[in-house]
Amino acid sequence: MVHLNALALHGSLRDPVLGSLGFLNEVMGRYPEAISFAPGAPHPDFLTDLDPHRYTERFLEHLVHEEGHTPARARRLLFEYGPSRGLINKIVADALRRDQGIDVPPSSIVVTVGAQEAMLLVLRALFRTRDDVLAVANPCFVGITGAARLLDIDIVPVDENDDGIDVDALAAACATARREGRRVRACYVAPDFSNPGGNRMSPQLRTRLLDLAEREDLLLIEDNVYGFTALSGDALPVLKALDPGRRVIHIGTFAKVCFPGARVGYVVADQPVDDPGGARLLADELTALKTMVTVNTSPLSQAVIAGMLLENGGSLHALTHRKAELYRRNLGCLMDALDRHLDGVAPGIHWNRPQGGFFVRMHLPVPADTALLETSASKYGVLWTPMAQFYLDGAGDRQLRLACSYLDPEQIETGVRRLATFLTKEIRS
Amino acid sequence: MVHLNALALHGSLRDPVLGSLGFLNEVMGRYPEAISFAPGAPHPDFLTDLDPHRYTERFLEHLVHEEGHTPARARRLLFEYGPSRGLINKIVADALRRDQGIDVPPSSIVVTVGAQEAMLLVLRALFRTRDDVLAVANPCFVGITGAARLLDIDIVPVDENDDGIDVDALAAACATARREGRRVRACYVAPDFSNPGGNRMSPQLRTRLLDLAEREDLLLIEDNVYGFTALSGDALPVLKALDPGRRVIHIGTFAKVCFPGARVGYVVADQPVDDPGGARLLADELTALKTMVTVNTSPLSQAVIAGMLLENGGSLHALTHRKAELYRRNLGCLMDALDRHLDGVAPGIHWNRPQGGFFVRMHLPVPADTALLETSASKYGVLWTPMAQFYLDGAGDRQLRLACSYLDPEQIETGVRRLATFLTKEIRS
Repeated sequence: MVHLNALALHGSLRDPVLGSLGFLNEVMGRYPEAISFAPGAPHPDFLTDLDPHRYTERFLEHLVHEEGHTPARARRLLFEYGPSRGLINKIVADALRRDQGIDVPPSSIVVTVGAQEAMLLVLRALFRTRDDVLAVANPCFVGITGAARLLDIDIVPVDENDDGIDVDALAAACATARREGRRVRACYVAPDFSNPGGNRMSPQLRTRLLDLAEREDLLLIEDNVYGFTALSGDALPVLKALDPGRRVIHIGTFAKVCFPGARVGYVVADQPVDDPGGARLLADELTALKTMVTVNTSPLSQAVIAGMLLENGGSLHALTHRKAELYRRNLGCLMDALDRHLDGVAPGIHWNRPQGGFFVRMHLPVPADTALLETSASKYGVLWTPMAQFYLDGAGDRQLRLACSYLDPEQIETGVRRLATFLTKEIRS
Repeated sequence: MVHLNALALHGSLRDPVLGSLGFLNEVMGRYPEAISFAPGAPHPDFLTDLDPHRYTERFLEHLVHEEGHTPARARRLLFEYGPSRGLINKIVADALRRDQGIDVPPSSIVVTVGAQEAMLLVLRALFRTRDDVLAVANPCFVGITGAARLLDIDIVPVDENDDGIDVDALAAACATARREGRRVRACYVAPDFSNPGGNRMSPQLRTRLLDLAEREDLLLIEDNVYGFTALSGDALPVLKALDPGRRVIHIGTFAKVCFPGARVGYVVADQPVDDPGGARLLADELTALKTMVTVNTSPLSQAVIAGMLLENGGSLHALTHRKAELYRRNLGCLMDALDRHLDGVAPGIHWNRPQGGFFVRMHLPVPADTALLETSASKYGVLWTPMAQFYLDGAGDRQLRLACSYLDPEQIETGVRRLATFLTKEIRS
């Protein structure tokens, strides 16, 4: 019988980033009674009243009454292969204009299988050879670093300040790459409550970053997944809304705000592509690539998302308003419980205070590795995510990430108590 | 404003294969009145009575009554992020055992976003460096060559006989690669009515191919998309059912047989992977890669497919029986009409006689290029697919592909009449 040698498979498979999701699921599976601060999943309350059938019917109505299809044709649009670019681009474009100040034509949007496929497509389109490198804020979401590994794209980590990515360090990284005969082709950032950093870029930093992109001929890959958790009235404009030079490729997902099980995300890529064969947009190129990744995003899934949006007047904000409140409540509970239970537990323990998002980062005086996680799970019934997997430079091995999105206040309280006991007994000793 | 240079984007975007789907859709869009032999899409009749809501409810029932979930938990399984490996693997495994003679545990299956994602994942896992090359039967389905381009994997075309891939030529390709310090890592084949070749491998050829794979330490990537169109009782065993050495990675899709709009496919990858870190299956590696491509296949989509299977006693064959009849009827109509209308139209025109599948290949005495297609569409109202895009060696430029799956007998008759007029006027002159 054939035996494959692990070392003869693609190198990305040996990267810890690729195994990270599987590892956490595996640990959670072994300790079902543990309180888990690991998954950044949507709160279960938002899943109970979902009604895919109703949303689908709402979208079908729209296709008939607003778009002029016959009922039979409308149903067929949902059942057959659809266009690779997407079926609901106009509805997404309207929502982006209304809620985010992003004013782009539907043709510059590609509807994807979650934000993850969007990241893969964007990286594939932009990175031609190994001389093109990707800059990322360090620590960084594993979805982008994992996609880069899959495509053999080299990554340059750029440190974060409390404010977000260090623009001077990014400029220095560009200069270093240039000296090596390479170039930083794009930089990935999540300006609003990044995972796992939790930072939010100030308006000044956003402007500086856009200026640098212009100066260095960089593209910015903006991931907007947690932007909706900002306090009402306190949201900052996304990079894409501040982008007359079209330097920003904007990626979003409906997984957190609508329906995780639908797997629908999108990318705005309105960059013109010059080609003697005819002018195109980057979105056209991403669409062509998508024919070789997933062909098209399930029209059934798209219908569910479109129906949810239409039920809410085409506004993401209307959909997310109540959810943002719950996530901010949870984040408040988590920070409050940490203050009450962890203060003075052991020297060298401290954590950040994000204003939104799903995550808090904690520093320990000892390595927060998988062995410590195993102890935390088996003896104290509390799970968290080692931060090392989010760092590209070996840093972060004494940090852990706590996610609060999935839990209720009582679970957060109990979980933090367990964490306090765990840290008291295991760190002090 | 930024302007991207097409030549600075990834090379795959300049490959005609990637633009092929977009081009055909574009031509079809411009000639909506033309009869199109271009798309290999399922027949519209099979879309009219689809009922995703009912299938979903059927799967929910199954989760409650057969798998012991509470109704609330069952619904949540559909609404939340699901496992990357898939939610319906056991149902798929049962169907493969029942219908295909493929007996594998559910854990060796990964549920994917159509067969396309499965191809991308398999290629990514197996191909480590540019010294690993992919052999494909030439002509070849663009989905596999496109995915290989995306991943910078070099392709070796291997000629087809009327019987399917030329095993001696494949052996020679392996030897050549070895002399060059490279190796043929895997070979992609569609043994049953390949697209676009239309060939079906004889039982003898299947055995020879498996023997060669063993001898040359090759993996075979088997695409089973059109196998279901075989005459009842005349189906041949798939390679995976003849594979004690686990040389075969088997890819299938529910798009043609169930529901195109659900975008659900699967891959069977039961190859053991040796690793000091712990034994795994290739399916585990594909699952890890999938976390960086689409994270998971929409549970909503999977529920629809599972429900359809369950309604049919868990059997794909029960689902496809009536469909296979329609496709064989269409193929018969097409070949009959070609015999009646094209015989003697011009010297040098001939076509093959596949026993199943969706496609007939036709040779012309002149280039069957996009200019000729434009003439065919604009002046004669009939569309087809240039075959050159399926060839890797510049051959096939005088061939076209006719798909009959999407049409009715009257359309096929009218379409072939138009084709006859077109060929009479344009080829003779």
